Amino acid sequence: MNIKLNCDMGESFGIYQMGLDEAIMPYIDMANLACGFHASDPVTMHRAISQAKEQRVKIGAHPSYPDLVGFGRREMLCTSEEIVAFMLYQIGALAALCQSYGMKIHYVKPHGALYNTMMQNEVVFRAIAKAIAKYDRDIKLMILSSPKNDHYAMLAHKYGVDLIYEVFADRAYTDEGFLVSRQEQEAVIHNQNDVLNRAKLLFEEGMIETINGKKIPLKADTICVHGDNAAALELIKVLHQLSHEYSYRLY
Amino acid sequence: MNIKLNCDMGESFGIYQMGLDEAIMPYIDMANLACGFHASDPVTMHRAISQAKEQRVKIGAHPSYPDLVGFGRREMLCTSEEIVAFMLYQIGALAALCQSYGMKIHYVKPHGALYNTMMQNEVVFRAIAKAIAKYDRDIKLMILSSPKNDHYAMLAHKYGVDLIYEVFADRAYTDEGFLVSRQEQEAVIHNQNDVLNRAKLLFEEGMIETINGKKIPLKADTICVHGDNAAALELIKVLHQLSHEYSYRLY
Amino acid sequence: MNIKLNCDMGESFGIYQMGLDEAIMPYIDMANLACGFHASDPVTMHRAISQAKEQRVKIGAHPSYPDLVGFGRREMLCTSEEIVAFMLYQIGALAALCQSYGMKIHYVKPHGALYNTMMQNEVVFRAIAKAIAKYDRDIKLMILSSPKNDHYAMLAHKYGVDLIYEVFADRAYTDEGFLVSRQEQEAVIHNQNDVLNRAKLLFEEGMIETINGKKIPLKADTICVHGDNAAALELIKVLHQLSHEYSYRLY
Amino acid sequence: MNIKLNCDMGESFGIYQMGLDEAIMPYIDMANLACGFHASDPVTMHRAISQAKEQRVKIGAHPSYPDLVGFGRREMLCTSEEIVAFMLYQIGALAALCQSYGMKIHYVKPHGALYNTMMQNEVVFRAIAKAIAKYDRDIKLMILSSPKNDHYAMLAHKYGVDLIYEVFADRAYTDEGFLVSRQEQEAVIHNQNDVLNRAKLLFEEGMIETINGKKIPLKADTICVHGDNAAALELIKVLHQLSHEYSYRLY
Repeated sequence: MNIKLNCDMGESFGIYQMGLDEAIMPYIDMANLACGFHASDPVTMHRAISQAKEQRVKIGAHPSYPDLVGFGRREMLCTSEEIVAFMLYQIGALAALCQSYGMKIHYVKPHGALYNTMMQNEVVFRAIAKAIAKYDRDIKLMILSSPKNDHYAMLAHKYGVDLIYEVFADRAYTDEGFLVSRQEQEAVIHNQNDVLNRAKLLFEEGMIETINGKKIPLKADTICVHGDNAAALELIKVLHQLSHEYSYRLY
Repeated sequence: MNIKLNCDMGESFGIYQMGLDEAIMPYIDMANLACGFHASDPVTMHRAISQAKEQRVKIGAHPSYPDLVGFGRREMLCTSEEIVAFMLYQIGALAALCQSYGMKIHYVKPHGALYNTMMQNEVVFRAIAKAIAKYDRDIKLMILSSPKNDHYAMLAHKYGVDLIYEVFADRAYTDEGFLVSRQEQEAVIHNQNDVLNRAKLLFEEGMIETINGKKIPLKADTICVHGDNAAALELIKVLHQLSHEYSYRLY
Repeated sequence: MNIKLNCDMGESFGIYQMGLDEAIMPYIDMANLACGFHASDPVTMHRAISQAKEQRVKIGAHPSYPDLVGFGRREMLCTSEEIVAFMLYQIGALAALCQSYGMKIHYVKPHGALYNTMMQNEVVFRAIAKAIAKYDRDIKLMILSSPKNDHYAMLAHKYGVDLIYEVFADRAYTDEGFLVSRQEQEAVIHNQNDVLNRAKLLFEEGMIETINGKKIPLKADTICVHGDNAAALELIKVLHQLSHEYSYRLY
Repeated sequence: MNIKLNCDMGESFGIYQMGLDEAIMPYIDMANLACGFHASDPVTMHRAISQAKEQRVKIGAHPSYPDLVGFGRREMLCTSEEIVAFMLYQIGALAALCQSYGMKIHYVKPHGALYNTMMQNEVVFRAIAKAIAKYDRDIKLMILSSPKNDHYAMLAHKYGVDLIYEVFADRAYTDEGFLVSRQEQEAVIHNQNDVLNRAKLLFEEGMIETINGKKIPLKADTICVHGDNAAALELIKVLHQLSHEYSYRLY
């Protein structure tokens, strides 16, 4: 098991700053870069790519619904044709900016409401997979790991697209292995130590502890970390250290 | 001499229709496709690419300043870094949508105020050439043909970028071979027959008649045509016929 | 019964033209003016107000979700706080432009997805009523007439807001007096003569013929007409004539 | 002399935070609230108005060119018709949100590039004055104080608009009483103590020290303060204290 750390980056917009990108970049493996629909702008994207290059971080596209003022967190009813076109537009824009630095896009992680909808609505999932397939089948799709992984893998396979499975160490899971809804009070784990222990369990045993205290296996190619404040940065540093220790043990 | 017809296409936005794209596509050689900054949206771009493919029309990117409500016609003071990033973003977005149809971008023609500024401000010209060079040196840059062609060719050459020279058959030229300013009453030639005769002179002799009635040579790889109304469509059909006749004679 | 004709107007955007505003204005009573969120821009709004003034047409605000590229037709999940603020922002913007012509806003008709959601989700209805109440209780709210009119009147009354009931002569109604869903094939009545006859039935008897051929009463303060093409304009002229004839009979 | 402190506020956008609005509001007299064109959104505007109300701060509209990604700092060539319409749209939007809190707009201070252009181009100055006059002549226009104050007062007077004269304690002035261009190295005074002393000189003597060490009189109704960091907040607190002391002495 070699679990990577992924983080949403490049989410500043014009003079609006968001995220401690520069401080965090050295400690993560994969940077999900916003593409201008929920956050970022061409100049911000260019700078984020330059930082990722310097720290040898793999770049992923982080496309969204077109909703800047809502930061892409609002569900918008879009047709498949729209989603395919939105995806290609954003991926291509980021790809060209990457190319100017000799970099490329390794994967796509849809943002916010689009990510959630992708996991609930197969029409949207298919549109996303189709867009990636039409652009470049070497690009993988990052999705939320769950007991339905095989089902989604099969769906994506029809488009020739490979998946990356993501786990949230700071989110509660049901006994069935699904995320506890954000409507519930215990959906998000705020205690940094708890988050750390949950990450450890993933690194060591590939297990997640459910909201009822059961340990269940959950495929994890990557853990999502957040980079918006100093405490988050500290947690990332520890997770980075941990992830490397466990990687070494594997060899 | 084999002069191509280029036309701004794909400038609809959402449900707003602009231009007789479908009717015009069969009669032009090069389609300058808007990239979402002054006009168009991902779905409109996708559809325009599909039409261009069907009619075997070469695709060019038609990037702009970010000014949708002003249709990119307003000068905006931007830094070189911004222009490079704006260009790459738009070119890449279009390129990815092209790729999904197995198409590619052959050239870049900046739009509106950006085009004008490129011809007046070398800092902007360089930023545009640099952006193209960083993305793909097989992509050419279309500029306004003038007595300064050699100078611009040299500038572009430094970035490894080739130029395409564009002439406007419906614009008045000074004796020196520059466009008459739009401030002047006679800047635009509205009589379709006059426009046709001016195009003929270009096809036949490579010459343009100046505002004072002199004939001067002007390099013309392509003539810009407009596709917004029925009369424009008729003119395009005649120019298309003419351009083919003159092409045949060359062989 | 004195049924007014209302029409969505001022929906151009920058150089994008939409609707035959100038031709239609003389034949309608109420102009629903877009406020820049789904269509229009400050200059377009200003011009539409000027046309309405010239033709002594009552002005209504036609606010929307913030979705220009989707023309406000896409449902967006918004909080009540957002909807109140969106409404006030758009109403105020239009009001100031009105004031510069000595005009004022008489009513609010939410646009597209926001209108539909208002009729399905009371939280949204309340947010809209609240925004109007906070701005000016002389401004009325236009809603879809249905058997639930009294219920909505009561809801609006809590905020001190009066309602205007709108009927669509070109939409099919169920026997219960609700709109047939657009999912159904027969939802929209395309035959202009049928639309005209349905309008007559409203003018004469205050009744609508349902999809099963039953006549049922339906409160109609106003009929919505569309102004996007020549046939629509002709229908409007006939309806305008009709509406005046029936108004005269009342006196 | 009773010099007020004005500060740009309400410049957050969606989840992007800008400025220490809550901390600063108790120490200023006038809040220039962004209106959605260069910064802010309807919800942010609503919240800023609520904070201003709580601290009894006078509200001014802070309208801009439509350039969110450029924060309104880029010059955009606009027609007078556009500027009038942009102004009315933004002022009205803010006014309606104010009205919902029983508040109103006392003055207008154009933002960024629009402010600079207003002081350099009388066509723009007139368009701004005209927009205010058409909306409400009780609303004043804040401009940069300079030796041309009388000239501008006369211009504004033609529209029935009164002026408020603003001085920047943190900007260098020429011996003639104009701002030193930002192109010059010494244009901005970074030392907080120097800024404080310059403010004192304004409070006490109504004078500004020029870049060559001369003291010249400069009319100051208000000083512009900045609220983006902790040091700025400290300076504001001291200026607030000072401004109150000098006010008391006047009575």
